[in-house]
Amino acid sequence: MTERPLRFGLIGSGRIGQVHAASIAAEPDAELAWVADPFVDGARAVAAIYGGTATDNADEVFASGQVDAILIASPTPTHVDLIAQAVDARIPVLCEKPIDLDISRVDALRPRVLESGVPVALGFNRRFDPGFSSARARVAAGEIGALEQLTIISRDPSAPPASYVAVSGGIFRDMTIHDFDMARFFVDDIIEVTATGTSTFDAGAREHGDFDTAVTTLRGASGTIVTIINSRHSAVGYDQRIEAFGAHGTLSVSNMPTSLVSLSTATSVEGKPPYEPFFLERYSVAYRAELREFINLVRGRQSTSPTFEDGRAALLLADAAQRSATERIVVTVDLG
Amino acid sequence: MTERPLRFGLIGSGRIGQVHAASIAAEPDAELAWVADPFVDGARAVAAIYGGTATDNADEVFASGQVDAILIASPTPTHVDLIAQAVDARIPVLCEKPIDLDISRVDALRPRVLESGVPVALGFNRRFDPGFSSARARVAAGEIGALEQLTIISRDPSAPPASYVAVSGGIFRDMTIHDFDMARFFVDDIIEVTATGTSTFDAGAREHGDFDTAVTTLRGASGTIVTIINSRHSAVGYDQRIEAFGAHGTLSVSNMPTSLVSLSTATSVEGKPPYEPFFLERYSVAYRAELREFINLVRGRQSTSPTFEDGRAALLLADAAQRSATERIVVTVDLG
Amino acid sequence: MTERPLRFGLIGSGRIGQVHAASIAAEPDAELAWVADPFVDGARAVAAIYGGTATDNADEVFASGQVDAILIASPTPTHVDLIAQAVDARIPVLCEKPIDLDISRVDALRPRVLESGVPVALGFNRRFDPGFSSARARVAAGEIGALEQLTIISRDPSAPPASYVAVSGGIFRDMTIHDFDMARFFVDDIIEVTATGTSTFDAGAREHGDFDTAVTTLRGASGTIVTIINSRHSAVGYDQRIEAFGAHGTLSVSNMPTSLVSLSTATSVEGKPPYEPFFLERYSVAYRAELREFINLVRGRQSTSPTFEDGRAALLLADAAQRSATERIVVTVDLG
Amino acid sequence: MTERPLRFGLIGSGRIGQVHAASIAAEPDAELAWVADPFVDGARAVAAIYGGTATDNADEVFASGQVDAILIASPTPTHVDLIAQAVDARIPVLCEKPIDLDISRVDALRPRVLESGVPVALGFNRRFDPGFSSARARVAAGEIGALEQLTIISRDPSAPPASYVAVSGGIFRDMTIHDFDMARFFVDDIIEVTATGTSTFDAGAREHGDFDTAVTTLRGASGTIVTIINSRHSAVGYDQRIEAFGAHGTLSVSNMPTSLVSLSTATSVEGKPPYEPFFLERYSVAYRAELREFINLVRGRQSTSPTFEDGRAALLLADAAQRSATERIVVTVDLG
Repeated sequence: MTERPLRFGLIGSGRIGQVHAASIAAEPDAELAWVADPFVDGARAVAAIYGGTATDNADEVFASGQVDAILIASPTPTHVDLIAQAVDARIPVLCEKPIDLDISRVDALRPRVLESGVPVALGFNRRFDPGFSSARARVAAGEIGALEQLTIISRDPSAPPASYVAVSGGIFRDMTIHDFDMARFFVDDIIEVTATGTSTFDAGAREHGDFDTAVTTLRGASGTIVTIINSRHSAVGYDQRIEAFGAHGTLSVSNMPTSLVSLSTATSVEGKPPYEPFFLERYSVAYRAELREFINLVRGRQSTSPTFEDGRAALLLADAAQRSATERIVVTVDLG
Repeated sequence: MTERPLRFGLIGSGRIGQVHAASIAAEPDAELAWVADPFVDGARAVAAIYGGTATDNADEVFASGQVDAILIASPTPTHVDLIAQAVDARIPVLCEKPIDLDISRVDALRPRVLESGVPVALGFNRRFDPGFSSARARVAAGEIGALEQLTIISRDPSAPPASYVAVSGGIFRDMTIHDFDMARFFVDDIIEVTATGTSTFDAGAREHGDFDTAVTTLRGASGTIVTIINSRHSAVGYDQRIEAFGAHGTLSVSNMPTSLVSLSTATSVEGKPPYEPFFLERYSVAYRAELREFINLVRGRQSTSPTFEDGRAALLLADAAQRSATERIVVTVDLG
Repeated sequence: MTERPLRFGLIGSGRIGQVHAASIAAEPDAELAWVADPFVDGARAVAAIYGGTATDNADEVFASGQVDAILIASPTPTHVDLIAQAVDARIPVLCEKPIDLDISRVDALRPRVLESGVPVALGFNRRFDPGFSSARARVAAGEIGALEQLTIISRDPSAPPASYVAVSGGIFRDMTIHDFDMARFFVDDIIEVTATGTSTFDAGAREHGDFDTAVTTLRGASGTIVTIINSRHSAVGYDQRIEAFGAHGTLSVSNMPTSLVSLSTATSVEGKPPYEPFFLERYSVAYRAELREFINLVRGRQSTSPTFEDGRAALLLADAAQRSATERIVVTVDLG
Repeated sequence: MTERPLRFGLIGSGRIGQVHAASIAAEPDAELAWVADPFVDGARAVAAIYGGTATDNADEVFASGQVDAILIASPTPTHVDLIAQAVDARIPVLCEKPIDLDISRVDALRPRVLESGVPVALGFNRRFDPGFSSARARVAAGEIGALEQLTIISRDPSAPPASYVAVSGGIFRDMTIHDFDMARFFVDDIIEVTATGTSTFDAGAREHGDFDTAVTTLRGASGTIVTIINSRHSAVGYDQRIEAFGAHGTLSVSNMPTSLVSLSTATSVEGKPPYEPFFLERYSVAYRAELREFINLVRGRQSTSPTFEDGRAALLLADAAQRSATERIVVTVDLG
């Protein structure tokens, strides 16, 4: 490669920011130029390991003239302004999901993004999971014929603290949003949303009028039905599965085994350890692939990075699900 | 055993009637005394193999004074009258599902059944499947803690002929009815039904305003959510699975392998033949267990045979699902 | 069928005799005519359930003129004389394995059997197991190309009593004999035997100079190597597996699951109950298929019943393994 | 960490040398100081990516005074002299297996190594595979009681070129050597070796009097039997499995799946892609763990690195197997 590697400005040095920092450092065509976090010690710690200059002020990153791409890994309420800032500075941006919890703020930002022509990608990392992307490619290649049903099982290992639930926007906007994007990854003509939610185990969810357990049904115009089964906890570990049922067969993506060792005894056959604890481990390969695809986008090559529009569509589905689950109605959507 | 085996009168000598005839013949405490079918050659063929007297007139069976139990395996529209006849004759009866496609006919029969005290059992054979009954017993024993989600996947191998669809009462009353009973087998406080149906591959379903693909969500008063995923066809064969997700773990019932042999090659690992073709094969053990449990009921022993009330509840859920899927609303149910 | 069913004379009413009696009773073209056992109460109990006349004297069966086939399920030391008696009476015979523990007695009987032309079949039931017979047929059909390695894992659930070990002829003649026949079922040019045995857990084996643990290697003239791994006990239950490794792939026959239910928890994924307890359960289908194939033989139809020569070859291999394991040498065999 | 990272001198820049270079570069407490290879372009390429100074002369590495540890990844015939050189220079050394193909050269080197007290580790990387090391730890922890049988299946994806076979020392010294070490990892009292080899598919093996297919049986003094099943090719990919059978249960280590996606169709259930192509992919985690453990050894911390004695014992077993397979005898060994 004769080009200089892309210089990244990373906004946010928390858990997910660190994941992206490591991906950037490991990628030949990327380097970490700046890390910004109001909690500047966090930014410094990341810069010490992965390179770049630390700052407590994201404006400095934009002003530096030293970044070719922005990666937004800061709290959700900051996303809209940072995307706007990047777009105005004509710097391509990869933003963690969701764009915002409020669709009106997203819609207000939307024309600015679309008209700018600046690449804006959304961090729907699961599209880059080797299992899910392979299943989707094989569906697209016709291996199972027409896709008739898609079942997504998505359960977190344990419920977040009540304080997080309070500002999360609810299970559909916070957690199911990934599954809504996955649904759209497979089915592109969703027109209807029905959701049922209950709170059976999490006091935090109950306290804040949220659900800890939810099932959402999406209907495609051509007849495909998507079922999303969510729980905020899972005794067996992070439970992430997909089953694509088609006219000629079924493609299943199972959980990732944590060990190749199984134990058989007089009382049990094939006892194995439970699954990967959470998304950082489960989707480690996906995060790196996501970054590479974003680099393709920035470099002007063909890219499958999810777009701003994908981020908006997922939020529209989340809003519809929230309405369906609380008002007990079936909600029609126009993802246009 | 010092008692004489129970003498069965079998009404109906079709496919399912033959299954029951074989079970009766194999059971030490049962014998086939009469077989009635307007198509008397069918009745004769069954009697030739499994014993008993053949007739083209079910009345003759009731009039004979030679039967201790009635097994109704005739077409659905005859069920209500035959149950009434058995109850009036004070002969215990095991009736294939559904009681009827019309809840008003069921409700009209209901007081007569309940007041009679005559044992009336419904043929929800899947409750007696070793896998499903074991999973339910283990849930009841608390192995996975509180049951939070139940996912039922139930797909037939291939769509029935259009002529059958026309009189079937629709996918929910004809096919999902088994899954509604299975849902109630695990969750006894269902209060709400949401269903989404489409017709994507079966011209017969489209022609008759029916669905070939459906997803139904049931909500329990205490928060458990049941998801039922149906299709009228399945390339891989009869697809019958259950996943019970609880606070402390998950119990999964998988499909029955048709072979212990797997082939691994340069292009595939673990290729196996597909699943059992259909219900007669898949549930052969269940049919025999169902009969034994009904014999317990007739003998006055403790029995878990599904009741007339179970049959009615499943139909109420089917009616609610039909309404939800066609009117696009969420339907509240009172299973009393 | 216009012919009268074959009338069977069963010699021996113990555990395996009862299995055969049940198979005979269930088979349309067979009926139980006589049951002989010096312990006449045993014979009577079998006859009461499955039909036929009981006697304490096998001679009476032969003299009756009422049997079309003899099934020998009596103790091993009686086999040679009973086969001779059947052959002389020109009655086809199915004899449980082994023919005898002493090859010289087998060789003395051999010309009488071969010259008589009377069908003599050996009870190597495992050839009729659906998994093993399917794997063998698929190997023969070339699905995995040339067979290069065959691995047989064969472990009993628990060691027999010391009194049984004392008269068993040793692990190779008593237990591995089945695996030797299975080896020959797949590989027909075995020329060399190497065996290693130890006694690690069974006091009875140690006391009688026998092994409780053994590994036998067989070499085929064309290069195929068969490995047989035996143990007299297995905590997980009856362990019966085969792996056929060929140039183009591998065919594996796994153990039969005892349940379709698996439990996943925070500490374990896929806990299942252990395997079928022992051969009566594991090979129940095989015993019935074995009988049907013997009926084909008696009826003069094409048949794959193992022959007297198969019985002799398995014993030759067992003798060679015994010599290899005790003298610590590699033994060449000529199975002719 | 306040200490300076260990400076490594890498001898050999071929396939396995590159693996170690990458591990060294990724390890915080290690850095690549020198790379030596007579093919100096290879050394230069490795140094360009992973750091260090390239040379065509290993003597320069030893003379530099700039290395804290030597990693020998050069061809087998150079190992003995390089170990001697490292020991004399009192530099700890990690040497790829085998020490040499000739036990007399190993024995000649042995006192020099043992008397020097310089840490010499052997590259038996499989001990560090998460599956195998976990299984061994669980056996040691008593999870399956006394270990009675160990079955090692080890098949390469495809046979090496005839030119390689000619100088490989034969399948036992070249390939099974890993399995002999694995056997000793689980069983420490091996006293006897029996091996059977054939050449069924590889013209190179036949040409050079080698085997392409082999089964080796090892007997432990306390009765454990180890079976090693080898093939020089495997249609399904690199086949690396272990089954530890104990008094109370079985621990199985399966192959690593290459995908979480499975396809079920009308003709096949659960078709998956085949296994990892070869050792670099299969054991990538193990190579890194091996290096970390060697660093522990160099740092004077507790370490489980395999020793020179382990390397010699594996070669003794290989020699015994070679003799057993060619002379058709059972060979007693003294691993003292």
